[in-house]
Amino acid sequence: MKLNAVFSFIKNDLKEIESELERTIQSEYPLLSEAGLHLLQAGGKRIRPVFVMLSSMFGDYDIKRVKRVAVSLELIHMASLVHDDVIDDAKLRRGKPTIKEKWDNRIAMYTGDFLFARSLEMITFLDNPLAHKLLSKTIVEVCLGEIEQIKDKFNVDQNLRQYLQRIKRKTALLIATSCQLGAISTEVDDVTHQRLFWFGYYIGMSYQIIDDILDFTSSEKKLGKPVGSDLLQGNITLPVLYSLHDPKLSGRIKKINKDTPANEMTNIIKEIRKSPAIDQSFELSNRYLHKALNILDKLPDGEHKIKLEEIANYIGKRKF
Amino acid sequence: MKLNAVFSFIKNDLKEIESELERTIQSEYPLLSEAGLHLLQAGGKRIRPVFVMLSSMFGDYDIKRVKRVAVSLELIHMASLVHDDVIDDAKLRRGKPTIKEKWDNRIAMYTGDFLFARSLEMITFLDNPLAHKLLSKTIVEVCLGEIEQIKDKFNVDQNLRQYLQRIKRKTALLIATSCQLGAISTEVDDVTHQRLFWFGYYIGMSYQIIDDILDFTSSEKKLGKPVGSDLLQGNITLPVLYSLHDPKLSGRIKKINKDTPANEMTNIIKEIRKSPAIDQSFELSNRYLHKALNILDKLPDGEHKIKLEEIANYIGKRKF
Repeated sequence: MKLNAVFSFIKNDLKEIESELERTIQSEYPLLSEAGLHLLQAGGKRIRPVFVMLSSMFGDYDIKRVKRVAVSLELIHMASLVHDDVIDDAKLRRGKPTIKEKWDNRIAMYTGDFLFARSLEMITFLDNPLAHKLLSKTIVEVCLGEIEQIKDKFNVDQNLRQYLQRIKRKTALLIATSCQLGAISTEVDDVTHQRLFWFGYYIGMSYQIIDDILDFTSSEKKLGKPVGSDLLQGNITLPVLYSLHDPKLSGRIKKINKDTPANEMTNIIKEIRKSPAIDQSFELSNRYLHKALNILDKLPDGEHKIKLEEIANYIGKRKF
Repeated sequence: MKLNAVFSFIKNDLKEIESELERTIQSEYPLLSEAGLHLLQAGGKRIRPVFVMLSSMFGDYDIKRVKRVAVSLELIHMASLVHDDVIDDAKLRRGKPTIKEKWDNRIAMYTGDFLFARSLEMITFLDNPLAHKLLSKTIVEVCLGEIEQIKDKFNVDQNLRQYLQRIKRKTALLIATSCQLGAISTEVDDVTHQRLFWFGYYIGMSYQIIDDILDFTSSEKKLGKPVGSDLLQGNITLPVLYSLHDPKLSGRIKKINKDTPANEMTNIIKEIRKSPAIDQSFELSNRYLHKALNILDKLPDGEHKIKLEEIANYIGKRKF
């Protein structure tokens, strides 16, 4: 099952969001517009806009309002990716050169800043102070998550708790906030928008774990970047942490640092790929997925709820 | 006259703002707290908090509310300085190593992001949607100003309009917004807070021009960085633009690029320092100052209005 098929019933509104994204990144500076467009055209699943839209449908859906929330959340995500690529010194994202690679770190820093600023401008139409409080709190957490990622690079002594906290900050909270703000924008009641927050949170945890698995098990073509990029950049993810339980692998993994030769890294990546750590990671992802589905059960029925369920199930099985 | 003397009547509240700033930059990451504290301890005039406070006094002053607006505006300013120093590859600020110099560009990028995020979190207590619209618009403009600054580096073909647009975005709008949001936070009427915006705007233009003059005429000790740093980093400011009218200097200035030998740069800086361009720049600064004072005239009387006038007059004469 492809995500596109699941999305077919919001296809037209997603197109409208895409146009709004394109419009929003424009400025009088060709370089800035070009960098933003480069980023947009590299694609991305737009899952945050999708969660905003589907969650907003628990209330009185109005694409004119909802699209601004969706664009705002996607822009925050895009901005964080651009700054991430500076931190990770990443050359490729989704098969295209990163902004820091195509231009330089300074341009990447300001493109990120600009996208972020535009995102804030976009969300100000919401008159609900709670929405701004939630969003700004999430942004602080996303920043802290990035700093954690720098601090924990090549740190193989970290534990599961540290990893989970990092992906919570890096991914889960922004998806949770996408769901909750989508609902708040259409005046969904408090209990429902809080439940949608937790639905998004668990889905986000599951989603990021799958992402971290695919970094080992997928292909360079599907990933749009080399297999094992996370580990090559020093990011210690769940499959690596679980592999530390494997006596054959743990000694080698513990020796990893930024000067580890490429062939040793490639071999370790191959070993992790075929180790039980992959299935163990899937299991943890599934546990989060079930928590998400349990929450969904308690929400009012509707076509959009069925779609959220389909997306949740897709996330558990996705291959790229 | 020293700014400290002018500020004496709000001294205690300024101390409270300083403590709030120190509290706000804390996080669970020692490195981040350290970088933030390093920045705070390097000092700074805190003119944005002062403008927030004095402007808020046109309404029902309450330090508990006002200090959050003041801290938020100062944090945005601090965040932009940290990212600026990456762009300018600056080694020193206020006599101390910059964050990018003491740590590195990546830490500087995330320290800036974090301060910025904290600033947003801080301002969300304001329930007035207009406040958020004004602030986010200003942040977009500040970002565009920074991008302009990159684009116009070593560009001696720029005109006065480009320079003025840049300092408007880089400095004047944030001071204007400090005045206006200070007033909005204490429910000052629309006419008055809009006038305070324009007062801040003109003061900001005047202030930045003086800053750009002092970069040539002050001493390394007072500046906390080498004399002529702007030009050395490729930033073309008002004294340089006016010097282009001097037939003796214009040929040499037009040849400047990032490979110009240090001794030629030092000589040009010395020539500009004693050229009529300095007085001409002071004149333009004074024109903005008078506009600011004219607007102030129209505002309701009070001790805080007298203080704003004293600050305005100080800015016109300041030596560092």
